[in-house]
Amino acid sequence: MTVPVLGPAEIEAAARPGLVLDAVRAALIAHAAGRTTVPPPTHLNFPAADGDCHVKTGWIDGSDDFTVKIASGFYRNPLRGEPVNHGLVCVISAHTGRVRAVLDDGGRLTAWRTAAAGALAGHALARHDARSVGVFGTGEQARLQVRWLAMLRPVGPVLVHGRDERRAAAFCDHLAGHGLSAAPAPAAEAAGADIVVTATPAVAPVLDADAVRPGTHVTAVGADMPHKNELPPALFARAGVIATDDHEQCLHHGDLAHAVRAGAVPRDADVPLGALLLTPPDRTDTAVTIADLTGVGALDAAVASAVVRELLR
Amino acid sequence: MTVPVLGPAEIEAAARPGLVLDAVRAALIAHAAGRTTVPPPTHLNFPAADGDCHVKTGWIDGSDDFTVKIASGFYRNPLRGEPVNHGLVCVISAHTGRVRAVLDDGGRLTAWRTAAAGALAGHALARHDARSVGVFGTGEQARLQVRWLAMLRPVGPVLVHGRDERRAAAFCDHLAGHGLSAAPAPAAEAAGADIVVTATPAVAPVLDADAVRPGTHVTAVGADMPHKNELPPALFARAGVIATDDHEQCLHHGDLAHAVRAGAVPRDADVPLGALLLTPPDRTDTAVTIADLTGVGALDAAVASAVVRELLR
Repeated sequence: MTVPVLGPAEIEAAARPGLVLDAVRAALIAHAAGRTTVPPPTHLNFPAADGDCHVKTGWIDGSDDFTVKIASGFYRNPLRGEPVNHGLVCVISAHTGRVRAVLDDGGRLTAWRTAAAGALAGHALARHDARSVGVFGTGEQARLQVRWLAMLRPVGPVLVHGRDERRAAAFCDHLAGHGLSAAPAPAAEAAGADIVVTATPAVAPVLDADAVRPGTHVTAVGADMPHKNELPPALFARAGVIATDDHEQCLHHGDLAHAVRAGAVPRDADVPLGALLLTPPDRTDTAVTIADLTGVGALDAAVASAVVRELLR
Repeated sequence: MTVPVLGPAEIEAAARPGLVLDAVRAALIAHAAGRTTVPPPTHLNFPAADGDCHVKTGWIDGSDDFTVKIASGFYRNPLRGEPVNHGLVCVISAHTGRVRAVLDDGGRLTAWRTAAAGALAGHALARHDARSVGVFGTGEQARLQVRWLAMLRPVGPVLVHGRDERRAAAFCDHLAGHGLSAAPAPAAEAAGADIVVTATPAVAPVLDADAVRPGTHVTAVGADMPHKNELPPALFARAGVIATDDHEQCLHHGDLAHAVRAGAVPRDADVPLGALLLTPPDRTDTAVTIADLTGVGALDAAVASAVVRELLR
């Protein structure tokens, strides 16, 4: 019996948003409680090809499966008509070590678990009456952040800020196709929404702290390397709640890292997002809340495991 | 296009010994010259299931592919009729990051690259007229060590020492089936052969240094953890040449580590096996030579890449 490979179509059919949201919620809660095993990732660099590869392993302690995720980015691939990102997720039994399945997902599971974590954070931390959403970034993850948040609570209008006007317009059309009212907006206007989401590869803050109104919730998902930065340290200084998906990781390469280095907040200013999903914070109507998300291997494990359970049952 | 999975039968057909020996020889030479990328492996433990999983990555710098090898050992599996070891090898393009193939090899490639490294070491370091082979261990790797060495030079008689007499007898029958003259032997007799190979899970030396005659070559492949130990420190003290497949790794969990801790040899007593494959040592007829092999990720990469090249060309 050879190991089954599950392709994008099967994975897409199995990974209903409800299943992904449940898995990510449970993984964030377990991670906050220290009930996960997430060894340091392995990095390989291929300078001659302008490429890199990350291998991430993760396990929710006591669960049936663990995962090994291989994710590569080769930045000259588009020149030969190939996508930048490749990879797969191996789901392995934590009882026997047998490889239960290889998920050839084209990076979809990572995109969805990031969208789910952002949506769960926004829903848990935003004011109950928060409706307008300001989005920075016009890529796939920016789209997913809005659509997944809209699965959890009423959303609109959506104010889209992108560097490229045509892409921002296309983004609005995309959201309209999903029944969401959206319009391109300057940065100051998008930053003035009830809920602000940043999903960019920015290396300098994309919004002014002063443009964010009291009572706003801000989720940042773009930073995945120490030099990336979407939120200004001054916004952290104003925040009543700072949630992180992984304390150490956000201190290393999240927006929190920049705020700590700038002296805006102490190193222990954050609380684990998973703890806030279990017990929502007692937020005032004027408090600014921030969720700084960098992506955790335990989320990959939880989502991939749930998909395999669904497909192989 | 989904990622191709290559199964045991295909891999067995492609991985002719000549192909494996060439790949391992080239990888050992590249590794000795510092032309390989081998990040530290990732380990996960599953104490409740008495299991562990190792993820090893490796690349021969500049070559077309790199590999991510997942290898698990769950030691209660036999109780449910399952093998202890599971895993697979992912072969990934170093030009685009695309996963070229998943090799569902059941651990075969690791067994063969270990056999190839042992055979290459024995052939390069033993006296030209060395014929008799003493083997410690009666498992699969012990069998492979003798058979692969016999592909490179005339071998016989083979003196087999095992703790279990029936297994030793079965081993001799197996070798006879491959045209090799073999007989069970006490440890002192096996240690007195021209070439000695240890392939056991021993945690204390399996032979007396005094039983090894001048001019003997000894290859040890069993140690893969710091507490494992096949060769006595006194044998290292006598050795004219000590070859290692990876200096740091052998200092960490090879037999060399025990000899250094015992004060029998200094930390820099070894030379890279790859360098000796390129330029064989000037050995006297009375020198004892040792090859301490712990297994290197670069060898996995070289062999898996060669197999995929063969199968997908």
